[in-house]
Amino acid sequence: MKCNFRSWSIAVSLLALYAALNSNGLLAQGANELKVMPLPAKAQLASGSLKIDGSFSVVLSGYQEVRLERAKDRFLTTLSHQTGLVFGHASSDPTKATLVVATDHESKPVQEPGEDESYSLEVTAGGAKLHAANPLGSLHGLQTFLQLVSITADGFTVPVISIQDQPRFVWRGLMIDSARHFIPLDVIQRNLDGLEAVKMNVFHWHLSDNEGFRVESKKFPKLQENGSDGQFYTQEEIRDLIAYARDRGIRVVPEFDMPGHSTAWFVGYPELASGAGPYELERKWGVFDPAMDPSNEKTYKFLDTFIGEMAKLFPDPYFHIGGDEVNGKEWDSNPKIQEFMKAHNIKSDVELQAYFSQRVQELVTKHGKTPVGWDEIFAPGVSKNILIHSWRGPEALAVAAKQGYRGILSNGYYIDLGWSAARHYAVDPMGGAAANLSPEEKSRILGGEDTMWSEYVNWENIDSRIWPRTAAIAERLWSPQETANVASMYARMEAESARLEYLGLTHRTYQRLMVQRMAGEAPQAQVDALSALTQALEPVKDYNRENTPGEEPTSLKPLTRVVDAAYPESAISRQFSADVDDFLAGSCKDSVQADEIRARLKQWITIDAQVQQLVQHSSLVHDAVPASAALSQSSELALTAVDRAQLGLPFTDDSKKQQIDALNAFEMQAHKSQLTLPVLAAFQKLIEAASAGGACRNAK
Amino acid sequence: MKCNFRSWSIAVSLLALYAALNSNGLLAQGANELKVMPLPAKAQLASGSLKIDGSFSVVLSGYQEVRLERAKDRFLTTLSHQTGLVFGHASSDPTKATLVVATDHESKPVQEPGEDESYSLEVTAGGAKLHAANPLGSLHGLQTFLQLVSITADGFTVPVISIQDQPRFVWRGLMIDSARHFIPLDVIQRNLDGLEAVKMNVFHWHLSDNEGFRVESKKFPKLQENGSDGQFYTQEEIRDLIAYARDRGIRVVPEFDMPGHSTAWFVGYPELASGAGPYELERKWGVFDPAMDPSNEKTYKFLDTFIGEMAKLFPDPYFHIGGDEVNGKEWDSNPKIQEFMKAHNIKSDVELQAYFSQRVQELVTKHGKTPVGWDEIFAPGVSKNILIHSWRGPEALAVAAKQGYRGILSNGYYIDLGWSAARHYAVDPMGGAAANLSPEEKSRILGGEDTMWSEYVNWENIDSRIWPRTAAIAERLWSPQETANVASMYARMEAESARLEYLGLTHRTYQRLMVQRMAGEAPQAQVDALSALTQALEPVKDYNRENTPGEEPTSLKPLTRVVDAAYPESAISRQFSADVDDFLAGSCKDSVQADEIRARLKQWITIDAQVQQLVQHSSLVHDAVPASAALSQSSELALTAVDRAQLGLPFTDDSKKQQIDALNAFEMQAHKSQLTLPVLAAFQKLIEAASAGGACRNAK
Repeated sequence: MKCNFRSWSIAVSLLALYAALNSNGLLAQGANELKVMPLPAKAQLASGSLKIDGSFSVVLSGYQEVRLERAKDRFLTTLSHQTGLVFGHASSDPTKATLVVATDHESKPVQEPGEDESYSLEVTAGGAKLHAANPLGSLHGLQTFLQLVSITADGFTVPVISIQDQPRFVWRGLMIDSARHFIPLDVIQRNLDGLEAVKMNVFHWHLSDNEGFRVESKKFPKLQENGSDGQFYTQEEIRDLIAYARDRGIRVVPEFDMPGHSTAWFVGYPELASGAGPYELERKWGVFDPAMDPSNEKTYKFLDTFIGEMAKLFPDPYFHIGGDEVNGKEWDSNPKIQEFMKAHNIKSDVELQAYFSQRVQELVTKHGKTPVGWDEIFAPGVSKNILIHSWRGPEALAVAAKQGYRGILSNGYYIDLGWSAARHYAVDPMGGAAANLSPEEKSRILGGEDTMWSEYVNWENIDSRIWPRTAAIAERLWSPQETANVASMYARMEAESARLEYLGLTHRTYQRLMVQRMAGEAPQAQVDALSALTQALEPVKDYNRENTPGEEPTSLKPLTRVVDAAYPESAISRQFSADVDDFLAGSCKDSVQADEIRARLKQWITIDAQVQQLVQHSSLVHDAVPASAALSQSSELALTAVDRAQLGLPFTDDSKKQQIDALNAFEMQAHKSQLTLPVLAAFQKLIEAASAGGACRNAK
Repeated sequence: MKCNFRSWSIAVSLLALYAALNSNGLLAQGANELKVMPLPAKAQLASGSLKIDGSFSVVLSGYQEVRLERAKDRFLTTLSHQTGLVFGHASSDPTKATLVVATDHESKPVQEPGEDESYSLEVTAGGAKLHAANPLGSLHGLQTFLQLVSITADGFTVPVISIQDQPRFVWRGLMIDSARHFIPLDVIQRNLDGLEAVKMNVFHWHLSDNEGFRVESKKFPKLQENGSDGQFYTQEEIRDLIAYARDRGIRVVPEFDMPGHSTAWFVGYPELASGAGPYELERKWGVFDPAMDPSNEKTYKFLDTFIGEMAKLFPDPYFHIGGDEVNGKEWDSNPKIQEFMKAHNIKSDVELQAYFSQRVQELVTKHGKTPVGWDEIFAPGVSKNILIHSWRGPEALAVAAKQGYRGILSNGYYIDLGWSAARHYAVDPMGGAAANLSPEEKSRILGGEDTMWSEYVNWENIDSRIWPRTAAIAERLWSPQETANVASMYARMEAESARLEYLGLTHRTYQRLMVQRMAGEAPQAQVDALSALTQALEPVKDYNRENTPGEEPTSLKPLTRVVDAAYPESAISRQFSADVDDFLAGSCKDSVQADEIRARLKQWITIDAQVQQLVQHSSLVHDAVPASAALSQSSELALTAVDRAQLGLPFTDDSKKQQIDALNAFEMQAHKSQLTLPVLAAFQKLIEAASAGGACRNAK
């Protein structure tokens, strides 16, 4: 509280510290004092702190605009929610302001990638100053300040610190698919609040697909009337959302996927399609036959009008036209299209799609926008004006960059696949082949987006799929490339995850209500068991949910089972696995660790008996029974292994093999519930350690 | 699913059942099958059930209006939230509708007390029919239907049942004080959703007091500009809220408290006051000197214009003018007022207030409204047109009713005092002296309101003070007088409390975030201990918080401590106390009960050591330390008592006395934290049982 930079001789550049501590995990402890995510480009921490109490005030200086005023109000609301402090009666005397926000000049009237987003933040015991070239930097700096506030024995404080920060990539986005499941506007809004908190600057809105067309078109009203089950956003709502996003330094890039993934268009306008129709909204997902008719000039006339309408509605300079996954079947079976291909010397469906894509890109360009599309739009000879959005991978981006094309990465950031934060965190747009590009080529890789495809998410569980893992991806896209300490990332991500709750995100609260729904009025012991089960397991990864026998996923099927409620990454299981690693690294000697591991295993062992009772009263629990049995029974193996490891009584080779086979069988059994047991690797380590009698033999 | 009334021979009138089981608690089990709150006037349950799945549909028949359409949409949304089912693609064929809502005719354009609110609901395995005279009854019936839905092994179902229902009282309200702490509109809205769920029909809005004037006046804008710190509702917001309430069958009765409790008026308009001014917004609470000047005709001119403006804004036929707690000091020390009293032969401040009240009532009546006021407005000779709102008690109401005055009761329903649901539930507007009134006199007692005074609540914890206890009060005001089984009430209240979460109420989720704020980034064991502490304790009752030495409550003080986060009624402590009663009733023989009691006591014993560590890192925990020590140390006594009771080793009389004295001292110690230990009575029972060696001696 009383000190400053001078008085603390070991003030260090955190950046240097990161590099030094990168591999040994020490940063996770040091970082307790700096729970900022994404980590700033440069930060110099000193001792001492600035007190935050009811007299706290903010003053805007330099360039002023209403967006900054609103940002200030929002900042104060969030700070009040975080701390419970009551402001609003504070002095408005600028010379007494706790935080001065100095902004040099305006940003562009429509936000663009590449605008200056840098800021500096100087906190002393006497006050704080945030300085930025334009409002974008000021917005980011306010978020950093909020993350720096923590409770101490002396009340809430911000550490004395000096930060100079700017993003590594100019395009840092989240895509939300509003088509497969409609995502209500208030859910989108709270997720934009989350994006602002972690300094993301693009909201990519996937607005049409086979399963729904989600935007009101005034030119072609049957798009939403026939294509949305009444679940669409009005133009007024969209304008409001774009303003909401701009207030938070976030661009809104609309996507209308074509010529495939477009069944929903054809329900109202079958004449756009290559097949005979009539068309109905698709309730399943995957790659389907319907595709726009590239041979019909009326298609382009329609799209010209439609894109013109949408280009006005969405002010962003970029316009995403999708372009992925066309199977060509409707084209192949339509004689007129075949005739057209012959007449124009188009030799394949790929070439036909390139032709279509070229025409649509011209329309997009005509309406003043830069076309964005998935990898497939990168066809030979395509204009260099496009932006390639890669679902295929960094190799594809590197190839394009070498040829002068700009791109962004989503491969590796598909958060619908249920990967761990660490796995996403390891993916770098400049990784793989991109690492060897020339600086000029590298500059063409603008950043990335994580993608929330909505096959298995709705208003209720979507936050839990987006958060907190998006914070890790946001850090990958903002912070210096060498920021890579996974333990530090997890520590900061958990802190940020807690803080995001004050913004209204439901990623931590949704599960309790979903468990309550499943359990109904069951006795508390059964509710607790179901909750423990849900917290220990994870949904199967990648696309394995579709592949579950007996599963016929459709958008009409409720998302109300354990697989829908379980976190993509179980924090309890991660902690358990870390405890096991510590236990084994310590030669199985630590009895406190052993007790904790045993207590958790005993809890898991009791789950199945409770779930077996619960399932008699709740159909929603039925599908989780195989996984419940697998968790309880595998935990019994693990518990025996802990005992044997500590006693130094190795398993025979046969027994070890049997047990590891059993673990694999339990995993297969859990898959019947569309769930996976993330602790099995730790269980196997326990069995192997007990068997080896190596490290653990010393523990006798 | 397959049965109906005929096939279940023991179908009974639940009403008869209530009476029969009233005293022995059996209803709590039977009532597992009927978690409806408030309990219907008549319900006949049969075996079998109606399946609720994705094909569920509702059709409105008979009288139609847009309010019913919106009610239907809201009903489907809530049902979807409760069940996770996806509707919206269901057939709209009326002959196939699962639920038909038949409404006979419209209700009044502005809702009035005494309108028909009855409905009948007939559920068979094949479908359900809701019938009501007007939309008010239809709204209530839809809420009953939602409460009947539960999960089973066959999915969601509603039991086959026949209900005829109507309220006992016509005025069933909740008052929220928006003055002492401003309560944001979205918080009010979600609480109106809660009121609708439990069939309350009045929202009484306490809009001005010493601490704030919360309504925009266009005639006198300095009321809100100078009197609200910028925290007020615009007229547009109020109109929207009134429409929101009407949609839910709820009247909005505004209250502008005068001539006392009115400091906030005088900040902008000191000329209204009896003192010299200038005035500042009050930050504390209590009875203060400022009061309107009853001797000045300009006061009535101002109020005429103001009441005229508000009478237009608030369409309800009733208009609450407060009238409570004038200390008369400004009157006594103002020579002009003293002169006025002499000139008009007014002999006391009470008479002067009666004069003022009379004048204001005339203004209210002139603007077409019925005046409502607190007990104090019941002065000799006052017009019979008024409605008396009793904070003093049922005796006062009975006296007034005998003289021909109508009244409503809030005494006994002050939910800010922290009483248990059972205690509020026992209060009856027809209790006490009212029980002996004639039928005609009784008809003048219209109902009651629970009152959420906002000294210690804000946006964050207010839901937890209102819910679930308001559901118990709602039942008292709706259900037949003989509905009085407390165990059944608690079972149904807990079920309804869970269901209210699907409406967005935060009474169950707020505490975790408040604990997180207090704990900061402390280790999980400390967070868990703080959470267990917060769940075991209750804020001190009645007005003891003001009386805590060193406490200087003001509206600027954050509500961020354990006392703010603790539930008014600890469910865990209630359960523990019930377990102790069972244990002792069973002669201390049940070892499972003993184990559970021991486990809870051991948990509580460990809390203090963790809290002692936590307080070194969080100033917010500081005040809870005395209570933490008191809980841990008293739990140690209780644990010993359990052991001794089971071993049959009685304490000496001296030891027993010492221990009971110690418990009292622990309670006093907890009061330093502004907390109370609700388990102390159970602890004392354990000590007494162990000492007596009576019932428990048999357990040896």
